[in-house]
Amino acid sequence: MANKPAPDASRRSERSRRAIFDAALALVGEVGYDKLTIEGIAARAGVGKQTIYRWWPSKAAVLLDAFGSVVEEYDQVGLPDTGDLAADLKTVLRATADEFNDAAWQAPYRALAAAGANDEELSRTFVGRLMEPGTRVYVDRLRAAQEAGELDPDIDLRIGAEMLLSPFSQRWLMRTGELTHAFVDTLVDQVLRGLRPRD
Amino acid sequence: MANKPAPDASRRSERSRRAIFDAALALVGEVGYDKLTIEGIAARAGVGKQTIYRWWPSKAAVLLDAFGSVVEEYDQVGLPDTGDLAADLKTVLRATADEFNDAAWQAPYRALAAAGANDEELSRTFVGRLMEPGTRVYVDRLRAAQEAGELDPDIDLRIGAEMLLSPFSQRWLMRTGELTHAFVDTLVDQVLRGLRPRD
Repeated sequence: MANKPAPDASRRSERSRRAIFDAALALVGEVGYDKLTIEGIAARAGVGKQTIYRWWPSKAAVLLDAFGSVVEEYDQVGLPDTGDLAADLKTVLRATADEFNDAAWQAPYRALAAAGANDEELSRTFVGRLMEPGTRVYVDRLRAAQEAGELDPDIDLRIGAEMLLSPFSQRWLMRTGELTHAFVDTLVDQVLRGLRPRD
Repeated sequence: MANKPAPDASRRSERSRRAIFDAALALVGEVGYDKLTIEGIAARAGVGKQTIYRWWPSKAAVLLDAFGSVVEEYDQVGLPDTGDLAADLKTVLRATADEFNDAAWQAPYRALAAAGANDEELSRTFVGRLMEPGTRVYVDRLRAAQEAGELDPDIDLRIGAEMLLSPFSQRWLMRTGELTHAFVDTLVDQVLRGLRPRD
């Protein structure tokens, strides 16, 4: 074993990476994006700041990777497809509503979304890296339903996904309404009525 | 005339008010909400900062009144009602898209929306004072269409309005897509298909 140091080093790296992500997500939720610093993340994670700078050029890069590590697994799995589009969408959006209503989860995500509204470069990265893949899994699920004849062949699937996801995101981000299961169910039903085949 | 000073004073007040609003909107677009100060607004408007403090307790209050002065007139007029719901919505949303695509208009509004995502109290005021009345004129127009038999009696009008407005707002705020007339037209058509009476 003495001539195989790599696995240990790799495990240590992975532990540091995880500690840095956890620290970044916790801190940005507490102090906001503007006051987040690499030094603060390093102190909270118990690593030297050079460790962070070796892997990431900026706090934005750390944070985007930290969120990325959470959402990418979900995006790769895709949405459930039981053959019942309405039921599948309600299942996933109800679970997402529960998650968004969790204060620990929402503080860092909100801080990043808010920073992105003002900072165009951060916003484009945030959207491309985190929001677009999330939207794409919905477009893919709608496309599968369209191919199965459940949705009209002529609808715009991208706008269909936005009709579903944007009211949800906006209630959360701008606090314009509650994210309840009843809201999710009505939203799914009204949106799908608009996307189903005409008789 | 010498014994009627009030109209002149009132005109002066109105001129100062307008200058303060213009200065606040221009400045917040240039420096962002966090760096906006009462002193900066006063200097730009050419008034003493005591003049501002006499009328408003905070920069947030100035800014909300400044936006309010722009949107309130529009909200009071309501949406057009020619009897053709789809055409009316497309007319208004196309014009709104043109407005949102105007850099001079969007910078201050975006700064306030972004500040609101992080600041819950500001957000609730922003939403209650500026966004809610804007949503309400759409709900009212949908209700008139529902009463005229153009929409299904069982739909949730509030969620219907969100299906229309949230994809629009989100494309703009998060820069997730372009606000084109083609987008507006498809959105209106797909949303209304979901809200019309079933056969």
